[in-house]
Amino acid sequence: MPNETLSQQLRFLLAADRLKGVTRKNYIIEPRRRENAAEHSWHLGLMAIILAEHANAPLDLLRVLKMLLIHDLVEVTAGDTYVYDAVANQTQAERERHAAEQVFGMLPSSQAAEFRALWQEFDARATPEARFADALDRLLPMLLNVAQRGYGWQEHGVKASQARARSQAIRDGSELLWAYAQSLLDEAASHGYFREG
Amino acid sequence: MPNETLSQQLRFLLAADRLKGVTRKNYIIEPRRRENAAEHSWHLGLMAIILAEHANAPLDLLRVLKMLLIHDLVEVTAGDTYVYDAVANQTQAERERHAAEQVFGMLPSSQAAEFRALWQEFDARATPEARFADALDRLLPMLLNVAQRGYGWQEHGVKASQARARSQAIRDGSELLWAYAQSLLDEAASHGYFREG
Repeated sequence: MPNETLSQQLRFLLAADRLKGVTRKNYIIEPRRRENAAEHSWHLGLMAIILAEHANAPLDLLRVLKMLLIHDLVEVTAGDTYVYDAVANQTQAERERHAAEQVFGMLPSSQAAEFRALWQEFDARATPEARFADALDRLLPMLLNVAQRGYGWQEHGVKASQARARSQAIRDGSELLWAYAQSLLDEAASHGYFREG
Repeated sequence: MPNETLSQQLRFLLAADRLKGVTRKNYIIEPRRRENAAEHSWHLGLMAIILAEHANAPLDLLRVLKMLLIHDLVEVTAGDTYVYDAVANQTQAERERHAAEQVFGMLPSSQAAEFRALWQEFDARATPEARFADALDRLLPMLLNVAQRGYGWQEHGVKASQARARSQAIRDGSELLWAYAQSLLDEAASHGYFREG
């Protein structure tokens, strides 16, 4: 029989499996299907390793990776909230805070405290690590959408002005990635990938 | 326009999206469907963060996470090889070495060299970090299979002796996790989750 610490950790890891069933609004490229929050989290982790050199400030990359690998776990109970859904966004903060208590509360107490703090740090964009992690979380769906000629944006009626507003906070994590995001959105607009108006 | 370094990195990250379409033999719990290699890699990264304290030796956790997040990228071109498929396993090493050259070769040269080295370190189980990462890669599908009453093992006709043989190397990464794996396999066998014989 495993000790109690290991038992708690394994129950948490099995509960985390449910993140693979949480569907996001955007699509993977090939085969085209909606992305789930677990593979999205993997992609962000890989992106952080590859692009860390472009952050505005020197980073503790391990902290960035921890944040990115856990940042969506609240969705195991709270569900995914689409960034362009104004109504759901009003209740998102409270739902997610509650979910963070629940899901990280499954862990042994010292890890539960560490993970709650990391999730809050990410959510509040409180440090250079959190701002860089958040920048990647904003940029990656744009990359995927442009690679698919705006398929997801078209489906959900996203306007260029909405995507541009969402891209602004990238600047707090990386000036270089922000500048790139602007050129990407210019390109997307010129190709008609957004809803008009 | 992005600089050439960033362009190469973004092309690599878009190519990596294909890992979400590489299907493994085991299943996620709910809804039941085959797991893909990207969400598997995320789950392993999370597992490493949670279980690092049980490793046999003190670890550089950042190196472990880098290895786990990239370890399946060779499957973007080489495909997934089932651990209990003896024929495919004969050609796997050569196919994967070739794939590692291709996929990591998309990156700027210093990152390409770092990633090739990390992948080889993992593949050769050359360090405490690699042996711990490999241990998790062996343990996680067992946890998922037992949580599903051996559904995947039954489908593929896996015998208890095969799973037991595959579990032995867990010991090199973590004595505690190896001991737990043995109790888990005992439980699975007593419940009839494996093919007989």
